[in-house]
Amino acid sequence: MIARVIVTPKPVVNDPQGLTVKQGLGALGFTEVTDVRVGKYIEVKLEDGSEHEARRRVEEMCRQLLANHVIEDFHFDLEQEHKRR
Amino acid sequence: MIARVIVTPKPVVNDPQGLTVKQGLGALGFTEVTDVRVGKYIEVKLEDGSEHEARRRVEEMCRQLLANHVIEDFHFDLEQEHKRR
Repeated sequence: MIARVIVTPKPVVNDPQGLTVKQGLGALGFTEVTDVRVGKYIEVKLEDGSEHEARRRVEEMCRQLLANHVIEDFHFDLEQEHKRR
Repeated sequence: MIARVIVTPKPVVNDPQGLTVKQGLGALGFTEVTDVRVGKYIEVKLEDGSEHEARRRVEEMCRQLLANHVIEDFHFDLEQEHKRR
């Protein structure tokens, strides 16, 4: 099972990294860019199990370690791995 | 138009950040985690235009600034913003 977690700064929180990227893109001529927000992408591989249980566990991982809930939001998708033996 | 860009370390590249997160999750009791890879998530808002042109421009942004093509892969989705006036 693979969980693809995306952690983003909350909309009300300043994002200096995003601002810097926006300015960098502008300097390169990408003047159509109006806003940039930078977050994290985390791919977590899990031992096989039920999707329901995996969802509960990954949510717990986000709360305990992957995201700072004061300043960040998170969401994730789960995907079953299809292995050939 | 919003582009949601995901930049990940290439599979052959070491990912010390991912390893650290994996160890952290293990220490918290998430022993079902077998692998973690950490990448970047970048949300780029663009002035309205054709999807075809936006795709070309965002691909160029990734090549020039957002991703390091030696050690990173990238992919992105485009989504039209539905504004109410």
